[in-house]
Amino acid sequence: MNIVCIGSGNVATHLAIAFKAMGAEIVQVWSHDSRNAEILAALTKAKPFHRWEDLDQSADCYVIAVKDDVIASVASHLKDVRGIVVHTSGATAMDVLAGTGTGYGVLYPLQTFSRTKSLDLTSVPFCIEGNNEGTLEKIAAIAQLLSSHVSVVSTDQRKILHLAAVFACNFSNHLYELSSKLLEEHQLKFDLLKPLIMETAEKIRYAKPFEVQTGPAVRNDQQTINNHLDLLKDSPELQQIYQTLSNSIKKTHLL
Amino acid sequence: MNIVCIGSGNVATHLAIAFKAMGAEIVQVWSHDSRNAEILAALTKAKPFHRWEDLDQSADCYVIAVKDDVIASVASHLKDVRGIVVHTSGATAMDVLAGTGTGYGVLYPLQTFSRTKSLDLTSVPFCIEGNNEGTLEKIAAIAQLLSSHVSVVSTDQRKILHLAAVFACNFSNHLYELSSKLLEEHQLKFDLLKPLIMETAEKIRYAKPFEVQTGPAVRNDQQTINNHLDLLKDSPELQQIYQTLSNSIKKTHLL
Repeated sequence: MNIVCIGSGNVATHLAIAFKAMGAEIVQVWSHDSRNAEILAALTKAKPFHRWEDLDQSADCYVIAVKDDVIASVASHLKDVRGIVVHTSGATAMDVLAGTGTGYGVLYPLQTFSRTKSLDLTSVPFCIEGNNEGTLEKIAAIAQLLSSHVSVVSTDQRKILHLAAVFACNFSNHLYELSSKLLEEHQLKFDLLKPLIMETAEKIRYAKPFEVQTGPAVRNDQQTINNHLDLLKDSPELQQIYQTLSNSIKKTHLL
Repeated sequence: MNIVCIGSGNVATHLAIAFKAMGAEIVQVWSHDSRNAEILAALTKAKPFHRWEDLDQSADCYVIAVKDDVIASVASHLKDVRGIVVHTSGATAMDVLAGTGTGYGVLYPLQTFSRTKSLDLTSVPFCIEGNNEGTLEKIAAIAQLLSSHVSVVSTDQRKILHLAAVFACNFSNHLYELSSKLLEEHQLKFDLLKPLIMETAEKIRYAKPFEVQTGPAVRNDQQTINNHLDLLKDSPELQQIYQTLSNSIKKTHLL
């Protein structure tokens, strides 16, 4: 299995290293930033390239892991390659790749990747899509190199997954950030909250979030809610977030 | 160490069982619901009671773990007891206990407790407060029976901790719930999101939430934000939450 890796960000890096570890060969790494391409190429014993005329047309698979708004322009350079072409985006339709390679599709790892934190990909859900049965089978085989959780997911479903991930991951992390700032402003350590944050995430492995909701809003404890809004009186934005989410909890649980 | 446990909900149950396991004796359990008192009393080999005239006045410590708005009325029955009196509430001032026992204070475990999920209390942060140095020392000794993370925290700081916990825990759990509903409506399993939720919480053990923020808002990717708002067009509430949190992320990271 020969792979050309297009992109050198967090997703590209994690995938390329995992492919390499599973015995695939990363033949080339492209990045709009040639320095980044060199770093990832060095990590995976691949050749970095920057000019599209240097693209190796004969790899088995071209993995596009670049910013969403650059996928189409990258794809325009992959019309004549002999392998299959996949992108790794949650929010981008498969058909942006129409006309590329000998088949195209999606290889979307539903996970948050940090450059500095290693990650076991084998338990990461990979959502795949292919432009036909044969391509889908090839993408499934590629995904199974990396993970034991491979699901076929349509473009429309994948967009919903991506949206749900924004709520569950991006927004939760922002709430962690807001709480850490609150603590800092009052000379309290964020470490105090970490066990609570871990337990909150742990709980929903075995129980539905609905069933383990706690806090003043689900108890309709208006006194505590008012006290909290009063503590936030110098921060209208935090008040608005508090109000919006408390109302949503009440609506979900009390109506 | 003889303890009277006042309350029989999630917090009371976890604490009483942990005290018992550490060799303390739970002499009595009170609950406004006598059935619940009986269950917890049976679990801890204590005597259940319901009428305040049956209260044992000679215990070392009275632990009040009831709803916030009942603490004051419970405290009114503890004026003459010979031990110290603590409540376990994040949102309630210590002084609601003024005049009780031979000393009073707070023993606040900063964690979310479910009846059905067991929990190792030894890593739970306990925030304590006492009405004087001697009482504080006694409460510290009691807290250290249960946990190796005991911090002295003032009433004002504890209220901020409780508020921060609403953001980091209650609101995050509600976001999990909203995302699970989105998936369900589109025939997708919530299981697909669970590794992402765990990783999001894991990340902030070693990195600041600010540093690991991902998603369209922090990238200022307005195209994806618009697509997401469009996917939510039949749900003005989800749109409002999406908009409010995305704006907050932008404000935190882009200004």
